[in-house]
Amino acid sequence: MEEKKSSSHETAGKPIRCRAAISRVAGEPLVIEEIFVAPPMPREVRIRIICTSLCHSDVTFWKMKDFPGVFPRILGHEAIGIVESVGEGVDEVTEGDTVIPIFLPDCRECADCKSKKSNLCSKLPFKVSPFMPRHDQTTRFIDLNGHPIYHFLSVSSFSEYTVVDIAHLTKVDPTIPPNRACLLSCGISTGVGAAWRSADVEAGSTVAIFGLGSIGLAVAEGARLCGATRIIGVDVNPDKFEVGKKFGVTDFVNGANSGDKSVSQVINEMTGGGADYCFECVGRASLVQEAYACCRKGWGKTVVLGVDKPGSQVTLSATDVLHSGKTLQGSLFGGLKPKSDIPVLLKRYTDKELELDKFVTHEIGFDDINKAFDLLLEGCCLRCVIWMDK
Amino acid sequence: MEEKKSSSHETAGKPIRCRAAISRVAGEPLVIEEIFVAPPMPREVRIRIICTSLCHSDVTFWKMKDFPGVFPRILGHEAIGIVESVGEGVDEVTEGDTVIPIFLPDCRECADCKSKKSNLCSKLPFKVSPFMPRHDQTTRFIDLNGHPIYHFLSVSSFSEYTVVDIAHLTKVDPTIPPNRACLLSCGISTGVGAAWRSADVEAGSTVAIFGLGSIGLAVAEGARLCGATRIIGVDVNPDKFEVGKKFGVTDFVNGANSGDKSVSQVINEMTGGGADYCFECVGRASLVQEAYACCRKGWGKTVVLGVDKPGSQVTLSATDVLHSGKTLQGSLFGGLKPKSDIPVLLKRYTDKELELDKFVTHEIGFDDINKAFDLLLEGCCLRCVIWMDK
Repeated sequence: MEEKKSSSHETAGKPIRCRAAISRVAGEPLVIEEIFVAPPMPREVRIRIICTSLCHSDVTFWKMKDFPGVFPRILGHEAIGIVESVGEGVDEVTEGDTVIPIFLPDCRECADCKSKKSNLCSKLPFKVSPFMPRHDQTTRFIDLNGHPIYHFLSVSSFSEYTVVDIAHLTKVDPTIPPNRACLLSCGISTGVGAAWRSADVEAGSTVAIFGLGSIGLAVAEGARLCGATRIIGVDVNPDKFEVGKKFGVTDFVNGANSGDKSVSQVINEMTGGGADYCFECVGRASLVQEAYACCRKGWGKTVVLGVDKPGSQVTLSATDVLHSGKTLQGSLFGGLKPKSDIPVLLKRYTDKELELDKFVTHEIGFDDINKAFDLLLEGCCLRCVIWMDK
Repeated sequence: MEEKKSSSHETAGKPIRCRAAISRVAGEPLVIEEIFVAPPMPREVRIRIICTSLCHSDVTFWKMKDFPGVFPRILGHEAIGIVESVGEGVDEVTEGDTVIPIFLPDCRECADCKSKKSNLCSKLPFKVSPFMPRHDQTTRFIDLNGHPIYHFLSVSSFSEYTVVDIAHLTKVDPTIPPNRACLLSCGISTGVGAAWRSADVEAGSTVAIFGLGSIGLAVAEGARLCGATRIIGVDVNPDKFEVGKKFGVTDFVNGANSGDKSVSQVINEMTGGGADYCFECVGRASLVQEAYACCRKGWGKTVVLGVDKPGSQVTLSATDVLHSGKTLQGSLFGGLKPKSDIPVLLKRYTDKELELDKFVTHEIGFDDINKAFDLLLEGCCLRCVIWMDK
């Protein structure tokens, strides 16, 4: 691995040989192999990953036998790294910069990226592709037999080196501990952002969160930061209440055991007419309906963060929609604009407002990467940080 | 009819005998009869109607054979009148004041009425009841045989005198022509408000309006006032484009003949990605889906104004909701708070900003009230003002 930390002038423009954890067969353990990582093409950046963490979407695509599940693939999309070299036309970052790769692009050129109102880039629209976003149908990874290895969410961080389009990179303060900063690459930002940017939770309000996994807990953290005074967690696992309390959850509703009442009835009664904001973080369309049903008439917002199966439908009564004055809103990456909002969140972390430490339940070395999958599947893990060097 | 215009000291506290147009059998012509209008109970006001206009909801309930269609009933809910006498505890208006009755209550006491964010009163929640809102199970109308006649939408303006709860009355500037001011009692406010208050249309934006009836045209008027630069009308009747142009409609899509493309596809192509705001004014849940489908990703708002049949459902793809960042919002009475927003709209009328004149296509006398129904059903009428005195 002598190339691994060589300085850019030695490696720039050449393939780098390094180790990567490859998902070769759906649902089977990742295999750590040596691969070649090609130099960045125009507007791309090659980065050395410092650490990465495992998100549920990695597991979803690891298990997915059919397209858009493809193999062999390098999964991983929550990470932090150091720029090794940059492709033509990249002036936003330079060798040695600390960067966070983000699955959602921010090209800074299109109408959406220029607008404060949207975080959905039109130039390189988000899609789950096995290729690079700007130079489509190409990969930067080949195995030692010369066979291509597919990318994941424009990041593929389960590799010592990866290539990421500049639209998918945010430069960050290098003094922030990487095992905290990397969390803002996806899941925690998605939750915190949903409360902060998408819902714009008002101080003193009541929030209901469906699903107390990492994303739901990150919504609680975001709602707490916004000054919500009551944060109701809903989960089928009652143990989640104890966990949730650390994140500001004040009340708990057991979704598996709400008696002869639906969860929405329970919440409507608890709150005297519904929560000001409801967040669906499980990824089940039927829960969107429940969340909408216990959202306060007149001003309530229901924010959808969870990813359901393709083809799932959200069904609402037309009369309820009309008569309730409620709002239903989708939130991808929490409505955050990567390049401008991530630095703000990191600043709030260094200012000791945003609490990231409590999300990290495990830290392991790269060789143990399959353990991270086990931990997440066992449900005992919020975020497992994987150090590439350990 | 000698009591009709008698001063309050002669009539206050006593029943008033006057003429009313009664809907006795579903779908059959209204019958003008003499009735007794009881004095107002506490927090109620008896008013003399100056003029009233016909709205589609009147027609809907006129035809409705089963509950909440009830008979005999006095329909009518768009009107303007003069306070004849007030019940106990009313200090907001006094004899001789000019008032607009509004189907949506504004009690000024509950959390919703005190909040700027809601127009859905919690104290006297909106419902389609045959009775008075505060003193439920009671009516103020009896026929000459002593049988009760039911109310409609807390207004029942097809009568020379009616009794309205103070929560349903807004005091207005008496110098405004009544045949213009009365339009703000329901339909036109609903449309203008949907653009102004519910959607908060930004200057320079693109709007798509599904259904160019009076409400849809009022949305266009509201969008024009807000500075929208492109207003796309959608209707199955191509004649509506010519009408629409008077209200600021700049483009037209024929919903009955959009070729091999759906209306949403046509609008997505016309706008390069969707309208900033879409308004469903027809009252068909399937059109809500079409409107949502041609709403701009990232920031698009779909506002639902149309009343569909009970039990109708709005179905959206869960992935679309999550990935589009769009908002779906219901809008009752255009999101307007009656007592504070109606005076603002009337001021904008007197300032020659809000154009009301073009909505009045017909004016008739009370005796011809059934003609108003014919005109509306024939589709050649936007608003028909019915003068009680003519």
